[in-house]
Amino acid sequence: MSIPKGDVPPMADLSIDNITAKTILINSQNPDERLTYVFERLVTHLHDFARETRLSTREWSAGLNFLVEVGKISSDVRKEFILLSDVLGLCLLVDALDHPKPDKATEGSVLGPFHTHDAVVQPSGEPISADPNGEPLLVCCTAKDREGNPVEGVKVDVWETDSSGHYDVQYQQRSNPDGRAVLLTDADGSFWFKAIRPVSYPIPHDGPVGKLLELLHRHPWRPAHMHFMFEKPGWDHLITALYIPPDQYLSSDAVFGVKTSLVTPLGKLTAEQARKYDVPEGTALLTYDFVLVTEQETEALRDKNALEAVSKLFPGRKCKLVDHLPVPDLD
Amino acid sequence: MSIPKGDVPPMADLSIDNITAKTILINSQNPDERLTYVFERLVTHLHDFARETRLSTREWSAGLNFLVEVGKISSDVRKEFILLSDVLGLCLLVDALDHPKPDKATEGSVLGPFHTHDAVVQPSGEPISADPNGEPLLVCCTAKDREGNPVEGVKVDVWETDSSGHYDVQYQQRSNPDGRAVLLTDADGSFWFKAIRPVSYPIPHDGPVGKLLELLHRHPWRPAHMHFMFEKPGWDHLITALYIPPDQYLSSDAVFGVKTSLVTPLGKLTAEQARKYDVPEGTALLTYDFVLVTEQETEALRDKNALEAVSKLFPGRKCKLVDHLPVPDLD
Repeated sequence: MSIPKGDVPPMADLSIDNITAKTILINSQNPDERLTYVFERLVTHLHDFARETRLSTREWSAGLNFLVEVGKISSDVRKEFILLSDVLGLCLLVDALDHPKPDKATEGSVLGPFHTHDAVVQPSGEPISADPNGEPLLVCCTAKDREGNPVEGVKVDVWETDSSGHYDVQYQQRSNPDGRAVLLTDADGSFWFKAIRPVSYPIPHDGPVGKLLELLHRHPWRPAHMHFMFEKPGWDHLITALYIPPDQYLSSDAVFGVKTSLVTPLGKLTAEQARKYDVPEGTALLTYDFVLVTEQETEALRDKNALEAVSKLFPGRKCKLVDHLPVPDLD
Repeated sequence: MSIPKGDVPPMADLSIDNITAKTILINSQNPDERLTYVFERLVTHLHDFARETRLSTREWSAGLNFLVEVGKISSDVRKEFILLSDVLGLCLLVDALDHPKPDKATEGSVLGPFHTHDAVVQPSGEPISADPNGEPLLVCCTAKDREGNPVEGVKVDVWETDSSGHYDVQYQQRSNPDGRAVLLTDADGSFWFKAIRPVSYPIPHDGPVGKLLELLHRHPWRPAHMHFMFEKPGWDHLITALYIPPDQYLSSDAVFGVKTSLVTPLGKLTAEQARKYDVPEGTALLTYDFVLVTEQETEALRDKNALEAVSKLFPGRKCKLVDHLPVPDLD
């Protein structure tokens, strides 16, 4: 519902029918149009959710206690709210909204709760995993634009679990980053590193999000994958992952990250490749040509999609963009 | 949107347009119809919120960080998620949905984050506040049914701030409950106690909810009030409060609790009353006749309202009640 700005009328005798409009009104006294719009939609959906379910006090209380638990277990290395957002499909949705992909661009996938900012920048060719039990894997990729031109100097964050399916941050005694690295693409757009073959693993399910999945009769497994994140000024931030078949969880990823275009069968190093990369012949090989798009391309597409979508959702409502984000246009 | 139960199809290639239906489907594999319905509505509104605002990754991240902070500051004596729910109007809405009031019944108000379970049961007539700086107030009330018959043996929880506007639990060195008590109604439905005149006060605003109010240009003040909670087997739980005029915040309560029917001007004790209650003549007096309803009356009204509301919201959808809560009827 749309409420024009203005004086806030007396806030008494609020009822099931009038509380939403009044709450929106009292939240509309600040000068930030985007904040006002976000809170208008937030309050509308929060209240509609309660009205449509006829939410009981007991359920409301259980919900708040659950959120307290999610907050309590959260830390720099345990991002339970991201996990919750993941299993509810919100992460994938926000990525799709914020990073629309034009034709040919590599699709995005979920960031997940395990990215860190302390991975070491290393030259191509070095190992990223110290796990002696992992099956050796050579990863040889490129970053190019949509016309096939290499993009040089892209900062590429990569991260994966060890062979038991745990990220380094899941170990209490983590002395230094492992299973992760930052690389820079070469003049030909390429970057390569030694890793281990990804394995499928359950997301952390010993906390409140795990309890929720159990209640919903959902399994916590993710199919084997390796995370990639690409950053370069002027280029749209790309968060994605490559999924390795065969994997029994490819069609039921607990966090909805799988895209067909990101499912990448492993190859095996030929004798020639083995010599080039100084790795035994027959070593498993993961190759992928990532296609990046410029910030400008993404912004133009996002702006267009946003205006179209909001006009379609609220046919009677004029809309404008502020910092590339939609707000109702009251002028 | 309504999704029938059934086999879950492959969960790959989720997009802005199909992720909601797929997430609902994967959440529908559990046997609890109510849980399934609540999560159907939750996911629908969460995703619609993101789609309608075109929520950015930065905003999503700020939102999750805010929720982590709300969880982190929460404790047995600091219920920040209740506070958040209060300032978003959700508490009042849930109370209105869960405890609909038939004609003549006393209206509900917000529980707030300051109720505790450790207040001492005391006979009528005792003081509930040890604050020497408060203005003395005698509170003389009754609990009756809608026909005016007294209801005996009702457990009445009362709680109020001290004269500086702080509840006992807001002091780090809280040795025992103060400004709160539990009383039982007499055979004539009456209960009375010595208290202090309530003052207006800001809700705790040194945490994330305070920051949010500031961002929204909202003040954190509540008008002067005293909390009352009524419990007796067979009777509907009544959570309410009496608001004391005059008060500059009566029409802008930060948590939307004020109902006109609960605004109760103070009187002054007559000479006769002063003798009866052994309190100085002229002492401020708060009187109110609370009207309780039976659990049966409330349930019948809630059931009727729920079925009517859900049928109106989803005209094509059959609905039934399970434990008095609506679920779609798929049979």
